[in-house]
Amino acid sequence: MVLQPGSTVGILGGGQLGRMLALAAARLGLKSHIFCPPGDNPGSHVCDRITLAEYEDFAACDAFAASVDVATYEFENVPVPCVERIAGRVAVRPGIAALRIAQDRLNEKNFLNGLGIATAPFAAVDDAAGLDRAVAQIGLPAILKTRRLGYDGRGQSLLRAASDAAGASAATGGAPAILEGFVAFEREISVIAARDQDGVIACYDPPENHHRNGILDISRVPAAIPADVAAAAKHITARILTALDYIGVIGVELFVLKDGALAVNEFAPRVHNSGHWTLDACAISQFEQHIRAICGWPLGDPSRHSDAEMRNLIGGDAGQWDMLAAQPGLCLHLYGKDAPRPGRKMGHVTRLIPKGHM
Amino acid sequence: MVLQPGSTVGILGGGQLGRMLALAAARLGLKSHIFCPPGDNPGSHVCDRITLAEYEDFAACDAFAASVDVATYEFENVPVPCVERIAGRVAVRPGIAALRIAQDRLNEKNFLNGLGIATAPFAAVDDAAGLDRAVAQIGLPAILKTRRLGYDGRGQSLLRAASDAAGASAATGGAPAILEGFVAFEREISVIAARDQDGVIACYDPPENHHRNGILDISRVPAAIPADVAAAAKHITARILTALDYIGVIGVELFVLKDGALAVNEFAPRVHNSGHWTLDACAISQFEQHIRAICGWPLGDPSRHSDAEMRNLIGGDAGQWDMLAAQPGLCLHLYGKDAPRPGRKMGHVTRLIPKGHM
Repeated sequence: MVLQPGSTVGILGGGQLGRMLALAAARLGLKSHIFCPPGDNPGSHVCDRITLAEYEDFAACDAFAASVDVATYEFENVPVPCVERIAGRVAVRPGIAALRIAQDRLNEKNFLNGLGIATAPFAAVDDAAGLDRAVAQIGLPAILKTRRLGYDGRGQSLLRAASDAAGASAATGGAPAILEGFVAFEREISVIAARDQDGVIACYDPPENHHRNGILDISRVPAAIPADVAAAAKHITARILTALDYIGVIGVELFVLKDGALAVNEFAPRVHNSGHWTLDACAISQFEQHIRAICGWPLGDPSRHSDAEMRNLIGGDAGQWDMLAAQPGLCLHLYGKDAPRPGRKMGHVTRLIPKGHM
Repeated sequence: MVLQPGSTVGILGGGQLGRMLALAAARLGLKSHIFCPPGDNPGSHVCDRITLAEYEDFAACDAFAASVDVATYEFENVPVPCVERIAGRVAVRPGIAALRIAQDRLNEKNFLNGLGIATAPFAAVDDAAGLDRAVAQIGLPAILKTRRLGYDGRGQSLLRAASDAAGASAATGGAPAILEGFVAFEREISVIAARDQDGVIACYDPPENHHRNGILDISRVPAAIPADVAAAAKHITARILTALDYIGVIGVELFVLKDGALAVNEFAPRVHNSGHWTLDACAISQFEQHIRAICGWPLGDPSRHSDAEMRNLIGGDAGQWDMLAAQPGLCLHLYGKDAPRPGRKMGHVTRLIPKGHM
């Protein structure tokens, strides 16, 4: 399948990732049709067409599927029945397999370990007795995470002592969960990579990521890691992509341990916040790369012309837009969201740095 | 006037320049409303709102003006009465003065000469007798151009001998014209520059431009000219901007003579085809720069991280999109136009080259 310029890309989700995907599609002469529930949808301002409906509205799903030439999603929590319904009528890329695995932390870790890829130690937790068993197995401190629907640190609870168990159980609302042990890591990195329909893979160099309050704060590329560690991280990512017969861009978060060994934290079957620097530091951004892959186009060169540091603008941070806009060498991106709620990603800035001068 | 993110930029014209302006506005969290006549309008696929109406439809102009926070235009042939009508209700940037001058080759050259800026020799031609007088004054070869509504070589006719006069007059349809003498130039360059509402000016380095069949083919930056010539070209551009009390981006085309002297060919009161390389080679593109200027934002740094060569995709050229997309380091831009008519600008590609390696 090779879509011609002028074709329409369907995007499930109208957030900032859908918005930046639609902008990338436009650059290539492709139209976009965004499907999302009513609300403050920044993607809706830049797409050729918008469907405002619930993901459970199958009539809307059918009409959407009939109007697009390929469909994709901008977030991993899009309901699987919606995607299945659409996939019955038009190609959905990446496929449902990646979505099913990524939507459930237990499936995700089992999948990774099944490929021989290291993760943090973990144990399934279905109830209070299960949590006690998991604590005995994993040790403390550890972190209890709901298996489903968590992002940016939500649905997570830290256990420092056995006495924290009851509170943690309450925090997850009794939903199926996993207990994760801590990994003594030196650094967090991620690999943003794409795989095309012929199995060709292109990886950007891994950025180093720093979080604040459980939300990505800064991504800096290149990461301060040896070349062989970067190569190993790309190799792990390539194995994940191939195992999933994946088409599109993926974001894989990894821990770098003291000895240079790697463990995967999690992966997102979509464009990724830690890849936003590619918009300004590469000829081909992660958004364009994703559009190319799902449309059956050749992947772009993932090399970068500049080193870069990306910083998220969270909540009130975006209020400093005028000061940020005035800084030389800083690329400002605002997502067009109405309300700067605490913790909400309102935009980002990327500082370009001549290569080798970071 | 400083527009807040979330404000709406009105754009007169729905061509590729309007499209790229709308995309640049989106990057900054601004909405766009495009006004253009019905037709194949590539800008309409990426804007928040579109008004399809004739420029003479004053009711539509009024409604458009009421819905935007600032207005601009993407082509210099937008009818002045339309712009005047809108300017009565909302700020139009750049203003009407620049438009009036740029729409008439005679006014434009008189304005430039009035500033002491050299141009090709010229004479007004209102009728056949006037053409004879102009030929006697300017000499041959020379080129007869309609004063108004010419672009990409249209409305132009070459006179090699006095016997060409009748044919040339017929070609311009008897419309008011000017006869331009040839300038013995070594090179064509352009300066893309912006001026903000406080009079601050930012110039990109001048590209060197090559035309084919009267249409821009290639822009290459840096131009192969000495630093003092580049500085002089920027200085001329700054004088034009200041004289017009201009707000926004301008494109000034210049001839570089054998001795390094400069003559202005013409200027366009808008973003310019020879500045498309800024999309990929600079942190801040000419499109974002224009949006920043007209919204009262600080101008961005016009320096570039890479050298670049931009090539237009004219007519059938865009049919090679798949081959172009596969070339490493090539940035592909397609405008989403339906019909690849001969001479129609369908897209462009920019090759990024590490600085100093051109």
